[in-house]
Amino acid sequence: MSQQTAITPTRAQDFPEWYQQVIKAADMAENSEVRGCMVIKPWGYAIWELIQKDLDRRFKETGHSNAYFPLLIPISYLEKEAEHAEGFATECAVVTHHRLQARKDPATGKTRMIPEGELTEKFVIRPTSETVIGAAFARWTSSYRDLPLKINQWCNVMRWEMRPRIFLRTAEFLWQEGHTAHETRDEAIGEARMMHKVYEDFQRDVLAIPTIPGEKTEAERFPGAEMTLTVEAMVQDRKAIQAGTSHFLGQNFSKAQNISFTGRDNTVQFAWTSSWGVSTRMIGALIMTHSDDDGLVCPPRVAPQQVVIIPVTPKADTADAVIAHCEELAARLRSQSFHGEPLRVVVDKRDLSGGTKKWEWVKKGVPVRLEIGPRDLEKGSVCLQRRDQSTSEKVFKPEAEVVDGMVALLDDIQQNLLRKATEFRDSHIRRASSMAELEANFSGEQDADWLLVPWDGSPEQEEELAKRLRISIRCIPVGSMGTGEEAPCILTGKPTTRRVIWARSY
Amino acid sequence: MSQQTAITPTRAQDFPEWYQQVIKAADMAENSEVRGCMVIKPWGYAIWELIQKDLDRRFKETGHSNAYFPLLIPISYLEKEAEHAEGFATECAVVTHHRLQARKDPATGKTRMIPEGELTEKFVIRPTSETVIGAAFARWTSSYRDLPLKINQWCNVMRWEMRPRIFLRTAEFLWQEGHTAHETRDEAIGEARMMHKVYEDFQRDVLAIPTIPGEKTEAERFPGAEMTLTVEAMVQDRKAIQAGTSHFLGQNFSKAQNISFTGRDNTVQFAWTSSWGVSTRMIGALIMTHSDDDGLVCPPRVAPQQVVIIPVTPKADTADAVIAHCEELAARLRSQSFHGEPLRVVVDKRDLSGGTKKWEWVKKGVPVRLEIGPRDLEKGSVCLQRRDQSTSEKVFKPEAEVVDGMVALLDDIQQNLLRKATEFRDSHIRRASSMAELEANFSGEQDADWLLVPWDGSPEQEEELAKRLRISIRCIPVGSMGTGEEAPCILTGKPTTRRVIWARSY
Repeated sequence: MSQQTAITPTRAQDFPEWYQQVIKAADMAENSEVRGCMVIKPWGYAIWELIQKDLDRRFKETGHSNAYFPLLIPISYLEKEAEHAEGFATECAVVTHHRLQARKDPATGKTRMIPEGELTEKFVIRPTSETVIGAAFARWTSSYRDLPLKINQWCNVMRWEMRPRIFLRTAEFLWQEGHTAHETRDEAIGEARMMHKVYEDFQRDVLAIPTIPGEKTEAERFPGAEMTLTVEAMVQDRKAIQAGTSHFLGQNFSKAQNISFTGRDNTVQFAWTSSWGVSTRMIGALIMTHSDDDGLVCPPRVAPQQVVIIPVTPKADTADAVIAHCEELAARLRSQSFHGEPLRVVVDKRDLSGGTKKWEWVKKGVPVRLEIGPRDLEKGSVCLQRRDQSTSEKVFKPEAEVVDGMVALLDDIQQNLLRKATEFRDSHIRRASSMAELEANFSGEQDADWLLVPWDGSPEQEEELAKRLRISIRCIPVGSMGTGEEAPCILTGKPTTRRVIWARSY
Repeated sequence: MSQQTAITPTRAQDFPEWYQQVIKAADMAENSEVRGCMVIKPWGYAIWELIQKDLDRRFKETGHSNAYFPLLIPISYLEKEAEHAEGFATECAVVTHHRLQARKDPATGKTRMIPEGELTEKFVIRPTSETVIGAAFARWTSSYRDLPLKINQWCNVMRWEMRPRIFLRTAEFLWQEGHTAHETRDEAIGEARMMHKVYEDFQRDVLAIPTIPGEKTEAERFPGAEMTLTVEAMVQDRKAIQAGTSHFLGQNFSKAQNISFTGRDNTVQFAWTSSWGVSTRMIGALIMTHSDDDGLVCPPRVAPQQVVIIPVTPKADTADAVIAHCEELAARLRSQSFHGEPLRVVVDKRDLSGGTKKWEWVKKGVPVRLEIGPRDLEKGSVCLQRRDQSTSEKVFKPEAEVVDGMVALLDDIQQNLLRKATEFRDSHIRRASSMAELEANFSGEQDADWLLVPWDGSPEQEEELAKRLRISIRCIPVGSMGTGEEAPCILTGKPTTRRVIWARSY
């Protein structure tokens, strides 16, 4: 017996296609005609706005200020930091001209616009802004008194992706990029670690995504970084998503761009810099972590609407009373506060059938649905459904109880989603101690668990193995997961205390 | 006797240079090494964030949703609406390649990055998004039930300006662009007018800029629009700044891009569209409207800090008590609300002289400065200074009175700035009825009043006159200012009831 689901195919049938269909059914985003670039539609963008608002507060609380830097980066800036430049060279959109000239095509009679005004200095559209922000930092820094500089930028960036996937990997995406400059090495490392923690906390507490925080191996580091910290999310096909990174850049960029200052000892020194960022990619991780075969499941803290009230109006003579009552209930709910914000409540008064409305909100992932009909009005009751439970499960409750318990209910849903995701993750990270286990785990095309293994291979050995099995070292987890008793590296056999996670990834 | 000012030169000496120096002294923004592109520094960006927050609320209250569309516009999109394309063709940044290739220069041994991967379909960086959003609207619209579409986008845009001026005219700027599609002509016109009013209200009530709302003449319309509404600000050199526009686009874009729908009568129809936008240019208008020879004067509603408290600590043994008291005072002020937001208050504890600190905050335009020293502590008094009054004017007041009166004081400053700007504007708009008056008014290189005149000239005559006197028709004011008894057009002599404003502009 097959149960009908709102999304076709199901996760089990075809996870990548299910993902596209969830996005479509929730009306979150779509591919545009511009290759690899998406249109983020209001429901998807509202989630991004909620993400921004929460993160922005965390950035300001940790002493950062927002600013804005040019979209275009002179190619000469990139040439200054070779490793960084090479890391992004294959995916840069290049601006070469600064006007168009209309020309009539003699063959077709149609007007064509032709690029004109070739630029002497050509530009790339920022794939990330270390170079252009570094140039500003160099202008702003002359004494140790000018440090630290702690700047964040919310903006768009472009990386010409050959295999785009909506939210996860698009030619243009939205993100924030923090950039800081410090007097000492320790302070810059402390900054990178602090923001790593901010990302971990945010994703756990707001997105209900229990990431594994860790450090990237040398082979997987950001181009130009001395240390790259990452938060790795496991989604429901057990692939890993790098959901945020924080880099200690040493003095690489400050030397390339002359971010120097006169120190306390009167010598001229180079600053120590960091950078860190998260992007709209997190929305992809969010969808793949929580959603089910009926569509998006949105954690309450980032749900554009947390409660939808659907008036059930079978008879014309009671319809007005039901709708008025729903509006009044919405107002009472909105007067309550959930994590410092008024509850987001919508009354769906559209002239559509109750079933059509219900399924639309199911697919949009709204955490709580309330239905109220004429009989509920008489009884003072409400029919309540939770998005994180079966769509057929309905609970009838006294209205006063629903109102009084709504904040606690939303918190419970938030916690439940985190708990489920954590259990899933923990049941799919396994320890392994041999190459045979690793090869068996990743032999198929199918989903595969993450393997935590003793590892002491070189970057070259890592890349060779990664390529052969189409896997990668996601991170050396921070804390106890990333170390252990001395054990032989699964590849080299050399004893090591280091543990790394190998996985398939997006 | 010359009085010393914090900004050199003064407004009277050299207004354009004064403007640059105000921005520098307030640390708001700077030119970058990327031609025509600015870096918006934290103080300037914080003003933009406050502008965004207030406007965004107004957009949502009037039924709009935020979304995000691609940065890159295929040139073929532009070719569809010829007038629009030609309007922006001369200032488009063109993307022609999608990667860089590192090549060693044999002569110098240095690595150069060379554009590679020429694109078959080339792109411009959006100068505005009518075309790319129109393409999305065409996908989203099939029935009248899909309308209206009411979308707003916060983003960056590029227009390759040949004579950039920070905030006012830069190659890249930040803005919002609203785009809507409607079933009927009247509804689209109503939308354009509604947003015109939103801009006027916002600028008056939040930026304390009393604009003249009006309609552009045909010659000054947005490329592709049937009607362009504008809000025109007069700044202190009496030049006009177009501070926001709202366009009724008729069916021009919907026909070019096939935004069509099946109507209530079952016929296929084209939608009626509007677009409207304001940008970081408003910050330029804000600076030029209110600031004085001591620097920025920031209206309280968009001041990143509304109150600065400067502890005066002449003696080490009382310093801690003074600072603790200032912190406590700040906390009490922050617990108050000004237009729905907690008061923004900073305590300047830096180890700098009181004078240095004071002048820094003067130049940054903070509305209220409080100084507290050991003697004030004893007396329970505070020294209060308003930015909108002379920098030498100090008032000593009981602290309780200062705390209780702060919100009213900020409102008074806000109103005072609006009143001063309105008086200035009104005293520099004059009625004229002949070409002789017009020519006399605009004969010199100096600042000139705005002239309100009867006008019935053709677009060609308007352009000829505009070019000759380096002026333009800013608008046909809405309401009674824009019409009058029949009077001869100053150019053609033909009787007309229409009145237009001629002025110099940025």
